[in-house]
Amino acid sequence: MMKKLKCIISYDGTNFSGYQIQPNKRTVQGSIEKAIQTIHKGDYVKVYSSGRTDAGVHAKAQTIHFTPEHHLVNVDWKRALNSLLPNDIYIHEVSPVDEDFHSRYHAVAKEYRYFIRVSQDYDVFRANYTYQIKEDLDLEAILKGCERFIGTHDFTSFASAKSTAKGSKVRTLFDVDCIRSGKEYEFIFRGDGFLYNMVRILVSSLIDIGKGKLQAEEIPALLEKRDRTLLGKTAPPQGLIYGKFFMNKHAITLDIVG
Amino acid sequence: MMKKLKCIISYDGTNFSGYQIQPNKRTVQGSIEKAIQTIHKGDYVKVYSSGRTDAGVHAKAQTIHFTPEHHLVNVDWKRALNSLLPNDIYIHEVSPVDEDFHSRYHAVAKEYRYFIRVSQDYDVFRANYTYQIKEDLDLEAILKGCERFIGTHDFTSFASAKSTAKGSKVRTLFDVDCIRSGKEYEFIFRGDGFLYNMVRILVSSLIDIGKGKLQAEEIPALLEKRDRTLLGKTAPPQGLIYGKFFMNKHAITLDIVG
Repeated sequence: MMKKLKCIISYDGTNFSGYQIQPNKRTVQGSIEKAIQTIHKGDYVKVYSSGRTDAGVHAKAQTIHFTPEHHLVNVDWKRALNSLLPNDIYIHEVSPVDEDFHSRYHAVAKEYRYFIRVSQDYDVFRANYTYQIKEDLDLEAILKGCERFIGTHDFTSFASAKSTAKGSKVRTLFDVDCIRSGKEYEFIFRGDGFLYNMVRILVSSLIDIGKGKLQAEEIPALLEKRDRTLLGKTAPPQGLIYGKFFMNKHAITLDIVG
Repeated sequence: MMKKLKCIISYDGTNFSGYQIQPNKRTVQGSIEKAIQTIHKGDYVKVYSSGRTDAGVHAKAQTIHFTPEHHLVNVDWKRALNSLLPNDIYIHEVSPVDEDFHSRYHAVAKEYRYFIRVSQDYDVFRANYTYQIKEDLDLEAILKGCERFIGTHDFTSFASAKSTAKGSKVRTLFDVDCIRSGKEYEFIFRGDGFLYNMVRILVSSLIDIGKGKLQAEEIPALLEKRDRTLLGKTAPPQGLIYGKFFMNKHAITLDIVG
């Protein structure tokens, strides 16, 4: 029987209506399934992903899997898929995995990064990859805010009201950090799971902290209140990059995001 | 009378059919003239540029100029234009210039940069900004090649056969250099003028030198022969960034490209 294949993929989300397939829209899943279908001479094979991204959100080292039909044993999948895919999706690696592997259920941690550029002058070359603001930020204050988010909390206040997550909105963030490099601030979020729009609302709140509109000390009370309407807007999608850490039977695979 | 205005602009060329206006195409000139026309409540004002770029080619600090109608004295042009322009064009600066200033005729030197990324792994985030190749390059050999292009030469062999330049194809290159930074090579060309596709053919030849397919020592003879068919293909547009050095009456203005 044909082996299940795990793929590590990256994509520039600028010109996609998000990861998940939708009728008459250009999606990442749709593009990859179309390429796999071409190799299968028309037969549809479903692709499973570690997660979904919204329109404009990018991914570096996202994990997907699929099981090709058994007659396709000699296909060089990395080469075949990349030759069929558009130049805003790339398959870094294709490797056989155990039958019980699942991109989504075997994820042990997720990582998101968010990029902000602070300058009076707009950079057209970073338009699709950063959220550009003019007002300078206080990095020390931001770092104090990051610390307040680390740990296990109910993130209702920091999730979209549209969040479809069933049950608990408690999530654990292992690491929240911010690194400044020249005009850009890179936010890093690692956790066991994220609610809908959670990273973009966390970033928006950390920007408010950096501007002095919100104090890090207020975060515990805001978390406690479980009310989305207390927080500011959702930061735009283009600054966001999604990746994942993975565990398979034998070892934790770090799907590098950087 | 209204002052002539000089603007320093940048644009991401990915989604433009080049700089120059063309019917039913999205062009940089067309977008800027449309914004100026809106501010003029429908009256057309022509924009003059230091140069033109092809589809997919980018610009950092390109100079343009136009003369607004005299009743528009209190317009904050930088703010007004940027608020009307799409997010892949940005006006860094608008400043009044002497009546005899001309973006094209007052250019004393031009600068182009070209970015190559060398890796077995394709980077989707650099797809629109680099030419990505797999085979490693010999930087020392490339630098020897760069030296051979510096000076005054007839560049017929290194210009598109479609070049519409009238008269002499002699140009002077003041500086040709290549800097490696991680997986990327940045080529820098500064000269008094460039023929059509000249930078992209020079880059293609320097890549051949970096791969050992061509020797730096062969360049003088290739220049001498004045035959385009002797050289390899034209490197693709997306790696190319255009900028300019300018002279006005009072001083040489370095329009920073970096």
